[in-house]
Parts: sequence; C-alpha cells; structure tokens
Amino acid sequence: MLVACLDLEGVLVPEIWINVAEATGIEELRLTTRDIADYDELMTHRLRTLDAHGVRLSQIQAVIAAMGPLPGAAEFLDWLRERFQVVILSDTFYQFGMPLMAQLGHPTLLCHDLEIAEDRLVAYHLRQRDQKTKAVAALQSLNLKVVATGDSYNDTGMLAQAEAGILFSPPANVAAEFPQFPVAHDYSALRTEFERAASRVG
Amino acid sequence: MLVACLDLEGVLVPEIWINVAEATGIEELRLTTRDIADYDELMTHRLRTLDAHGVRLSQIQAVIAAMGPLPGAAEFLDWLRERFQVVILSDTFYQFGMPLMAQLGHPTLLCHDLEIAEDRLVAYHLRQRDQKTKAVAALQSLNLKVVATGDSYNDTGMLAQAEAGILFSPPANVAAEFPQFPVAHDYSALRTEFERAASRVG
Repeated sequence: MLVACLDLEGVLVPEIWINVAEATGIEELRLTTRDIADYDELMTHRLRTLDAHGVRLSQIQAVIAAMGPLPGAAEFLDWLRERFQVVILSDTFYQFGMPLMAQLGHPTLLCHDLEIAEDRLVAYHLRQRDQKTKAVAALQSLNLKVVATGDSYNDTGMLAQAEAGILFSPPANVAAEFPQFPVAHDYSALRTEFERAASRVG
Repeated sequence: MLVACLDLEGVLVPEIWINVAEATGIEELRLTTRDIADYDELMTHRLRTLDAHGVRLSQIQAVIAAMGPLPGAAEFLDWLRERFQVVILSDTFYQFGMPLMAQLGHPTLLCHDLEIAEDRLVAYHLRQRDQKTKAVAALQSLNLKVVATGDSYNDTGMLAQAEAGILFSPPANVAAEFPQFPVAHDYSALRTEFERAASRVG
C-alpha cells in the first residue's frame, strides 16, 4: 500500500486566485510569483488589495465553492482512494480549500491558515517552509512509500523526495526543466502513471 | 486546523478478529494479546489457524464487509472531516481495513500489510513498531497539532503524544489506568470532547 500525495490547484481544482480575480473583477489579484517573486510581498499585496476593495472571506468562499473541482477530478480521486492512501499537500489556505474538500468527499488536506477577523482576511500564516517536501519525508520516516503529483515549480521538491513523481499538465517550461518526471496531460494518463509507479515502487 | 488521529477497531468498526471467529466458528481466533501476550506469536498462531481451516482472504473480506462500521460511525466521521484533517491509525492490515474504508468514504488509513498468495494469508508485515505514536510525532514535526482517540492500551502512546487524547468506550481497566484522558462513551460525547480539545489546543 502506497501513499499518494497530490497538489491541489492545477491537479484537482482550478487556480483559486485567478478565479477570485475573475469573479471580483480585481485585475491585481491575477499577479502570481511570476510577477512578484517574493511570496510574502505577493500575499501581503493580495490581502491589502482584497481589503481595499472590501472583499470578505465569505464572498471568496462562495466564488471557490461555485468554481468547484476540475471536470473529472472527483472521479479520479475516488479511483485513487480505492488504491492508495491519499494526502493532499497544498500551499493554499484551509479557509479556501475546505469548500472544495466538501465537493471531493473530504480527503485529508495539509496546507496553511489565514487569520480571519469579522470575515476580513487579516493575515496569513505559513505552517512550514517547503511543507510539501517535508510532508513526504515525514511519511517516509514512517516506512511508507510515496507517489506524488503536481503541476508546478513548488511541487518539484516533493516529486523529487517521493519514491515516484509525476507532473500533471505542467507548463512547458516546467516539463522541460524536469525531464526526469513523467508527464500526464489528463486523468486517464495520470491513472496509468500511478499504476506504473505503484508496480515499480510497491 | 487540527489533525484528528483515530484508532479503527473499537472506535469506528467492531473488533475484526472476534467477528471473523464468530462468522467462521473458529474459537481459537478469539484469542487476543490478553491470552497470548507476544504479538508475533499470536499473529503466527492466527495465520496457521486460518490456513489449517482453509479460510481464505476473500472469505475474511466478505465477513468484514458484511460486518460494516459501528452504528453512527459514518455520520460521526463525516462530522469530523468537516472540522479536522482525519488520519486513521490502526494496527490492522490493509487487506482487512479497505473493505471498511469503502463504507466510510475512504478516509486516509495508515496500518500494516499482509502477504497474500493465491488468496491465502501467508505472512504479516508490521510497517513499524509503535507506529501510531510515531505517526502523531511525524505530523507534529510538520507543525501540525493532533487530537487523538482510541479505546485500548495500544492507543495510549498516541494519546499521550498528541496535544490532546480522548479514550472512546475503553475497558474499565484502561480508563482507570489512564485517568489523564477524558472518556467518551458514545459519538455524541466524542464530538463534545473533540470540540473541547480543539478550543483548548487550536
């Protein structure tokens, strides 16, 4: 029995900030670490922008709940949970992630926390730097073997740490920079890659 | 956001070996660590007994699937998963546990493995000694806080390691020996204890 560690955004659900930007019409929320490299600066900017526009947590949660998982994600996850022990490792926040978990049958999610006061987003708290890689290592310390999948740079640490790593629909530059990881472009191919990894690792 | 670590047998599902003994009529399968203190000796005896009676894995899995979770367990678990990140820590085997996980919406389960050959139980493999306590410590190394519940001696290590431990329907001697842990006798009381622990720990 293997553990499957999954990134959330881009793998099971759409990008949350982009959807919030679209739903609220606040263009500045489209900025990512490609635009503001320092994550702390980016998040501080996001929280200030939301506050300046009077956007509250409950509105964001409604956007996220309406956005829902990616088409086919729930079925893929159901398939995976019959065969692996699933843990979702995400750099989102519980306040954003939980409305999506409700639509995915509440898999176990390890991510970060926002500080909320009267429905306002006051601050964010990263639980741990590089938490995805560390979570995989912690599972391995329990004599568990891990197959991990994600779509982006911030997943490549956990993909490398895992016994097997799979890129799911990555941007072309990520796929080019990490040729050691097989690439799946849809859930059918992702199933095949999980089966391959299991027969190799398990 | 806290992690809830749950024992399986006695908390969410009935005792598996006792049900297998009843369904097969093999009285020797009722023996527990109270009768044979050495776990390795006990498990070796169980596997030999099953083999001597020609009992196959598929038969045991049918018994386990028919046995199902304890009344109210699925509802309790659904309630818990909306509020905590749930990980089930059990000293059972995946081949026994998975038919029950299917009836509980596939929560994440960390346990042990049996070696199966042509439907026969050939051997057992403990993933790690004292795996429940170690799993709680591994989660804590990720800056997560844990509330744990279990019913028996083999749970008291994880209950002590966790930020909060709760005994669920324990035998009287366990409750007496570990007065530091609050006791819940039904799921309603267990919810209350989880809420109390969360407001104290979170």
